[in-house]
Amino acid sequence: MSKNYPELLPPNRILMGPGPSDIHPRVLDAIGKPTVGHLDPFYLSTMDQMQSMLRDLFQTKNEMTFAVSATGSAGMEATVVNLIEPGDAMLVCVNGVFGTRMADVATRAGADVTCIERPWGEIFEPQDLKEILAEKQPKVVGIVMAETSTGAWQPIEEISTLVHDAGAMLLVDAVTSLGGVPVEVDRWNIDAIYSGTQKCLSCPPGLAPVSFNERAIESVLTRKTKVQSWYLDVSMLASYWGDDRVYHHTAPINMSYALYEALRVIHEEGLTACFERHRLNHRALQAGLTAMGIEFTAQDGHQLPMLNAVRIPDGVDDGQIRGSLLSRFGIEIGGGLGEFKGKVWRIGLMGYASRDTNVLTLLAALDQLLAEQGCKFDRGIAIAEANRVYASSVTSAN
Amino acid sequence: MSKNYPELLPPNRILMGPGPSDIHPRVLDAIGKPTVGHLDPFYLSTMDQMQSMLRDLFQTKNEMTFAVSATGSAGMEATVVNLIEPGDAMLVCVNGVFGTRMADVATRAGADVTCIERPWGEIFEPQDLKEILAEKQPKVVGIVMAETSTGAWQPIEEISTLVHDAGAMLLVDAVTSLGGVPVEVDRWNIDAIYSGTQKCLSCPPGLAPVSFNERAIESVLTRKTKVQSWYLDVSMLASYWGDDRVYHHTAPINMSYALYEALRVIHEEGLTACFERHRLNHRALQAGLTAMGIEFTAQDGHQLPMLNAVRIPDGVDDGQIRGSLLSRFGIEIGGGLGEFKGKVWRIGLMGYASRDTNVLTLLAALDQLLAEQGCKFDRGIAIAEANRVYASSVTSAN
Repeated sequence: MSKNYPELLPPNRILMGPGPSDIHPRVLDAIGKPTVGHLDPFYLSTMDQMQSMLRDLFQTKNEMTFAVSATGSAGMEATVVNLIEPGDAMLVCVNGVFGTRMADVATRAGADVTCIERPWGEIFEPQDLKEILAEKQPKVVGIVMAETSTGAWQPIEEISTLVHDAGAMLLVDAVTSLGGVPVEVDRWNIDAIYSGTQKCLSCPPGLAPVSFNERAIESVLTRKTKVQSWYLDVSMLASYWGDDRVYHHTAPINMSYALYEALRVIHEEGLTACFERHRLNHRALQAGLTAMGIEFTAQDGHQLPMLNAVRIPDGVDDGQIRGSLLSRFGIEIGGGLGEFKGKVWRIGLMGYASRDTNVLTLLAALDQLLAEQGCKFDRGIAIAEANRVYASSVTSAN
Repeated sequence: MSKNYPELLPPNRILMGPGPSDIHPRVLDAIGKPTVGHLDPFYLSTMDQMQSMLRDLFQTKNEMTFAVSATGSAGMEATVVNLIEPGDAMLVCVNGVFGTRMADVATRAGADVTCIERPWGEIFEPQDLKEILAEKQPKVVGIVMAETSTGAWQPIEEISTLVHDAGAMLLVDAVTSLGGVPVEVDRWNIDAIYSGTQKCLSCPPGLAPVSFNERAIESVLTRKTKVQSWYLDVSMLASYWGDDRVYHHTAPINMSYALYEALRVIHEEGLTACFERHRLNHRALQAGLTAMGIEFTAQDGHQLPMLNAVRIPDGVDDGQIRGSLLSRFGIEIGGGLGEFKGKVWRIGLMGYASRDTNVLTLLAALDQLLAEQGCKFDRGIAIAEANRVYASSVTSAN
């Protein structure tokens, strides 16, 4: 070993992509606290409190609410492989990258997968599912609540009723929605749900909060076959997260510290205020972008506040704008995925990144960079429009 | 949300259990550095350097050497599910908890598993495998190099020759061995190997370093079926860790910072010095424990330096000693697993925890606690014997 490896000196970024988003300073402080053992009384009590806060956030009483020891994508896999046995029918709603991924994960778990599709950016209406539910009689229906590739905000409640009327269980992807918009697991009767820490929780990537209701757990406990993944087997994880504390794997202690503190930050702000903040900053960003002639890709009335997928203006160089945002302003935004590659930018306003200063800084940077590429708009108008939104919200709050 | 959640104030522990072990202070500092995006040029360069340091540590040139975004147990699952297709024959060597686990993981992946067993604490000799290799003609042979449940140190090289002569691939569990004793992937012709961050790397749990050689990757790329786990599919992970940087999942940025710094610490100390330190502290601990009449469980000549599994003296209360070590001295040691439960303590001297001050503190604490439980030994003799080992090592180094 003769090479030299430099000291770790990450640049300070403003993280306004599709995640990771800006980390709350208290979370970065918490993650570096002294590590204890995974069976230490202190850690066990931290787990309990973390579960309690996760239940508040998911708006559920589900006992099996916990954090999978891996990133959000493993949360998807954890829910799918526990609910699905080889040969089970599963219906997956696909209107972007993450629905496609869920279908892939389910197929690998041996599910007999049927996909129903909507164009990217659009949402599913209950009537889209009705016929196919009756025809396929799936065990599980999977749907993405916040499509991170398109910014579309999928309503869940009505579809849930339909799914349960058809005798199926509902599996919801809440990776990007949790902590940014209401996610009401019990009221909407969601059977299994997963999220990630790196979106609206202002926490680094590394854990996947999940929740299973009693129907889902019952279905796991009465499986004919073992869950294909030992690491993600919720029946074994229940013995570690439950009262027995049976050793399963060594929990990621410091990531848990981070999630604990992130949940405490949300708890202190309060869910209502937190969602309102996400909405307000989105409205300001939208006003600014619209004033510069930039259009959103999601269906009217179904735009997520925390993930703004917008069409790149004609003639503008995608790579150059994103490169300059990063190198000149330290701002990260996301490029398009799949069929949106090169055509769409994804601007995140998630968690701690959903702040007025971030919105104004990004609009100011785009004002300059788009003008340099020859876009025509009134210089400064984006900032003026965003400030107008903020000012009116202050007035209306008084 | 009306409950109060306390500020996160973990106690300072001395982590001498089976992991997590003491974290190096530089690693705890690194994990809290500013998060950047998973496609940020800074992060991509950090990944490259991390891979380079991991190759040094595994003593391999394997291109596919990287960190799985989950804990060590997921490293086991990642290697197994990539190499195994349903119906493939796999031979697993079981002489403790982690061999048993590997057999379970392989069975869930659809392998036709044959276990060969040795009593806990003993190792496998090449002749133990010869007959069954010829009979079963397995595709993969799995073996644990450092059985964390027994402290047995399994030699790999001769068995590897035998396994390859029989046309099989060799899969090695190096969770506890990596960073504490030599792990020579290329020289020993290991096809796939996994480890964890929380043992001898002085890093919190959360990542699983793995390495696949060309034969193993070729076997993945020519599979007839998709890898059952989307999250752990090494053919997809190769596109993210390789030059293409194709988005797969969002990498756990801050855990990567921790591993990066942990590897840098080892790199600076040098592998030879690092292994020598582990050996010396083990010898001192062993001298001290032996002086108090405490016996090791591993087969003579095959005791790991970093994991010391010792028999609890007759009449001593397991829970009371471990409880007092934690509450009175802040020291964590591990209890026995499986058939060793209540009979064995597992004392880790891993990574940053492998220090003379830790050895002496633990021996001093045990001197008091075992005397309180009526054990008969010359008070202070453990410290005297440990110090004698340290003193002679200084003399011989001069």
